[in-house]
Amino acid sequence: MHPYRTHTCGALRLADAGAKARISGWVHRKRDHGGLLFVDVRDHYGITQVVIDESHPMFKDVEGSRPESVITVTGNVVGRSQETVNKDLPTGEIEVVVEDFHLESSAAVLPMQVAGNEEYSDEMRLKHRYLDLRREKVHANIVLRSRVIASIRQRMTAQGFLEMQTPILTASSPEGARDYLVPSRQHPGKFYALPQAPQQFKQLLMVSGFDKYFQIAPCFRDEDARADRSPGEFYQLDYEMAFCTQDDVFNAIEPVLHGIFEEFGGDRTVTPLPFPRIAYKDSMLKYGSDKPDLRNPLIICDVTEHFAGGGFGLFAKNIEKGSVVRAIPATGAATHPRSFFDKLNDWAREEGMGGLGYIIYGEDGETKGPIAKNLDADRVAAIKAQSGAQDGDAVFFVCQSENLAAKYAGFAREKVCDTLGLRASGKFDFCWIVDYPMYEMDEEKGKIEFSHNPFSMPQGGLDALLNKDPLDILAYQYDIVCNGVELSSGAIRNHLPEIMYKAFEIAGYSNKVVEDQFGGMLNAFKFGAPPHGGSAPGIDRMVMLLADEPNIREIIAFPMNQQAQDLLMGAPAEASPEQLRELYIKLVPLPQVEKKAAASEDTVSSES
Amino acid sequence: MHPYRTHTCGALRLADAGAKARISGWVHRKRDHGGLLFVDVRDHYGITQVVIDESHPMFKDVEGSRPESVITVTGNVVGRSQETVNKDLPTGEIEVVVEDFHLESSAAVLPMQVAGNEEYSDEMRLKHRYLDLRREKVHANIVLRSRVIASIRQRMTAQGFLEMQTPILTASSPEGARDYLVPSRQHPGKFYALPQAPQQFKQLLMVSGFDKYFQIAPCFRDEDARADRSPGEFYQLDYEMAFCTQDDVFNAIEPVLHGIFEEFGGDRTVTPLPFPRIAYKDSMLKYGSDKPDLRNPLIICDVTEHFAGGGFGLFAKNIEKGSVVRAIPATGAATHPRSFFDKLNDWAREEGMGGLGYIIYGEDGETKGPIAKNLDADRVAAIKAQSGAQDGDAVFFVCQSENLAAKYAGFAREKVCDTLGLRASGKFDFCWIVDYPMYEMDEEKGKIEFSHNPFSMPQGGLDALLNKDPLDILAYQYDIVCNGVELSSGAIRNHLPEIMYKAFEIAGYSNKVVEDQFGGMLNAFKFGAPPHGGSAPGIDRMVMLLADEPNIREIIAFPMNQQAQDLLMGAPAEASPEQLRELYIKLVPLPQVEKKAAASEDTVSSES
Repeated sequence: MHPYRTHTCGALRLADAGAKARISGWVHRKRDHGGLLFVDVRDHYGITQVVIDESHPMFKDVEGSRPESVITVTGNVVGRSQETVNKDLPTGEIEVVVEDFHLESSAAVLPMQVAGNEEYSDEMRLKHRYLDLRREKVHANIVLRSRVIASIRQRMTAQGFLEMQTPILTASSPEGARDYLVPSRQHPGKFYALPQAPQQFKQLLMVSGFDKYFQIAPCFRDEDARADRSPGEFYQLDYEMAFCTQDDVFNAIEPVLHGIFEEFGGDRTVTPLPFPRIAYKDSMLKYGSDKPDLRNPLIICDVTEHFAGGGFGLFAKNIEKGSVVRAIPATGAATHPRSFFDKLNDWAREEGMGGLGYIIYGEDGETKGPIAKNLDADRVAAIKAQSGAQDGDAVFFVCQSENLAAKYAGFAREKVCDTLGLRASGKFDFCWIVDYPMYEMDEEKGKIEFSHNPFSMPQGGLDALLNKDPLDILAYQYDIVCNGVELSSGAIRNHLPEIMYKAFEIAGYSNKVVEDQFGGMLNAFKFGAPPHGGSAPGIDRMVMLLADEPNIREIIAFPMNQQAQDLLMGAPAEASPEQLRELYIKLVPLPQVEKKAAASEDTVSSES
Repeated sequence: MHPYRTHTCGALRLADAGAKARISGWVHRKRDHGGLLFVDVRDHYGITQVVIDESHPMFKDVEGSRPESVITVTGNVVGRSQETVNKDLPTGEIEVVVEDFHLESSAAVLPMQVAGNEEYSDEMRLKHRYLDLRREKVHANIVLRSRVIASIRQRMTAQGFLEMQTPILTASSPEGARDYLVPSRQHPGKFYALPQAPQQFKQLLMVSGFDKYFQIAPCFRDEDARADRSPGEFYQLDYEMAFCTQDDVFNAIEPVLHGIFEEFGGDRTVTPLPFPRIAYKDSMLKYGSDKPDLRNPLIICDVTEHFAGGGFGLFAKNIEKGSVVRAIPATGAATHPRSFFDKLNDWAREEGMGGLGYIIYGEDGETKGPIAKNLDADRVAAIKAQSGAQDGDAVFFVCQSENLAAKYAGFAREKVCDTLGLRASGKFDFCWIVDYPMYEMDEEKGKIEFSHNPFSMPQGGLDALLNKDPLDILAYQYDIVCNGVELSSGAIRNHLPEIMYKAFEIAGYSNKVVEDQFGGMLNAFKFGAPPHGGSAPGIDRMVMLLADEPNIREIIAFPMNQQAQDLLMGAPAEASPEQLRELYIKLVPLPQVEKKAAASEDTVSSES
């Protein structure tokens, strides 16, 4: 017989009754039923109940094994009586009657419980992550993460993508977030950087003649933590394709995302293929965001014309100064009391949008509210028609300059949806946002800047750059969004040096600046570069959506805390003088006030 | 029609003749056949020949496209005439007659050629890696690497292993090689370390209740380069299992390795399962190494008894002082001239082993050589019998202290094998080396030390530690070897704190030292740790064996050079004063002499 187990703790069934079995696992729970001791033994696969009678010579040993000790139990599998069957457990129809017992590893008194649902602080959980990870939900999350990634890999491979590893010790990237630096011992005074993303390498792989690349790529950004971004490192499904159009990219990745969310989404539905494609401009108008949550049924529209020169003086005056008015329908809101509208108004003021105007279209056909009082009836009716409001609905209004109006209308759309409980549940709503503008006007500096990625191919190519108003040029740049969460930006890349020089020139950069900053890529493009594009959906965000967890730490095995510390292994930590000497670096003493701040952070990590 | 391609450059066949096709790719080769221009267009998938007549209005454009430019060609697929079929190409029965042509990206004059077999310096190749990677062999190597890793993943997953990512920004490990350090911005004066291996994390995953973990894990060691180890980063198939015996580990990984080498080994044969298991002691005796190349048929034996007190005074005297004599048979060597033996003798002297004695067993039954002259005939015959030598063979001898004798006999076994051309080819010969000693005597310090991994479980557990001579204690530690290449060490881990304390005590370490240095793991083990074990075969070494490449740079897409520099991206590089300020570190000026050395290294990287 195997020294540890013939079966896992999730394996035994009624059909095994009568057999001798051996299982090993952790002491999950013990229950003493007068002369009979029941122990739930837990391993990765499940829980099996074992039972021992007080007459057994090993009874005291079993009774004395503390929770979370690791034990091995050998005995006969017996069917449980009808009334003791546990329907919640796959092994719930049987139990193992202890013949032999071995304590593999005794647990000390626990700082936190594994069984049960007690809540613990992040600090406790991260410091004793090996206990935390034994708990049902987080254990399941990590298994889910692993399965999701394995499935992504198989789906990408099946589509002909080749996974390739790009360097982790590499050069600092001249744009984007803050790099982590790694001092070089062999080249004193010089530093490697950890990649913020394998962007340049994946483009170089295309220039190197590979056709479809992907990688579950570790990425590193020395940025402060957010709920949806781990400090330090995160993973993305980085992929790139050669000789592709934007549609090819969508057609390649959509089935992968769709498949993953179908496979692991439980009974939640997934947007059927192809995913909707929404122009950036339309998205900003209809959803007030380029990350629209399509589970929210409300659709914004522009009603400026109905207020222009109308009786509601505040809006009419602002429209003359260039403002626009956006309408947010509020389905079924008409029957809500005055306080409902007041509260939304208060919220809007707190958000800085100076209040939310509204019209109530009563169920009786009457219109209510200060705007309705002042505006011609045919304008009020036109707004109703355009916004799609029905009797019984209300419509809220935001009047601002165009960019602000879009943004605030987007906020209001979400707020109204939540307040009215209109958001659909049980679904993953995907869409692409496409046709991003290549440039935007920086109002403060009064100059044209890249609106997103300077390395995207402008639609229309060089011709567009030479002949169009820069603010009218669109880029082959796209975002994939699910339930209002941006999974990734992506683009068809600009692979032609002459277009790159011109694109930068429009944004005010000389050829020399381009060459100094992006010389590596640019040089490679001069030796035959294929058209190429891709994107890089965030793995962590996908798993968060699938696990329905709002915090990224719940879906990473060993995350750092918000202060970018690993409380379990004690990182970061001091280096030895010898290490620093070898690297030819020296620490700079902190100014007194900062030292204090740093010291108090340290206290958190050294508590035990 | 797709703007870039209806077919890849590897897709078209005779069955496609008559169809219109579009292909895109790089200009691989051009051949002008008087009025007809042939162009080999190459992409990731293959090469397709296109042809254009000089009467075509685009003839000049095609003719003028420089090698490695990216082009798109549209035209009719036509079958080639019998005498122009190229049997070496899957597309060799057809060609595409150019109707339309588009230059996607023009290549400048190349610093190195892609077509052909010209050799270039490592520096040239790494600096223009995007050209080098287009060359057939290295392109194929990178594809092979990707396929091998994908297959490993599928095989591990199919066996129930879950891939999990462990942190890359973590704590310095107190033992082993040199860490790469990463200064923390949020915790000035403190550093993360990049993991030398996920050893502690994978053990923590077992303590966390996961059952079978694996990871294609990036590992980082700041060591100088070797042919089989990249400076900086490398990958291993890191895996660990709970509730397992050593045999369970072997049974889990053997089919994966066997399968991979069968799948990608071409017509090379693979050791059938189960792989042989050779005790460390036997391996040192029979092969003079714990990394035996079993393709070498020669087997060493100990012939001390036949020389002890015998007529060959030199050996007899040394044996009295404690030396042993090891015999290396040299199959078929008897007919070789005297110079053969002299050369091996010279080689042995250069290696520091003070010459190689030998006996020649002539085909005529006569024995020859200085040893045979001095040793009794029955001893000479006994050596022949024991070593398995036949008439026509020779036997070489090494007489040294036991450890040196093993080592030198191992060297001689390899040298004799190569000189006589005895090594089998076309096979992958696997074996496990097991039963490593737990401790060894450090002769210089006269104290007992761990011979390999202090964290392996001693065979016999605490009882053995308490009751056996430490030098007799074996560990559950094992290596997997293929064709003389060590792919990995592994072990059943010591998961019990009391055994760990005792094991370290024997090697002279107090409990306090153990707690200070390995507190993280040790603490985790106190809260219920399962028995567990695993290993971590090197991915790069496996791919090197499969690709039959002696240099690791041939199987990595973007390797660093021997000086740990990335010549393509220019890493490592200087950091900005602002970056250093944020990190609270300062550079220490180099002493003059070292500065010079560093400067001359820099020259290499900044040449262009």
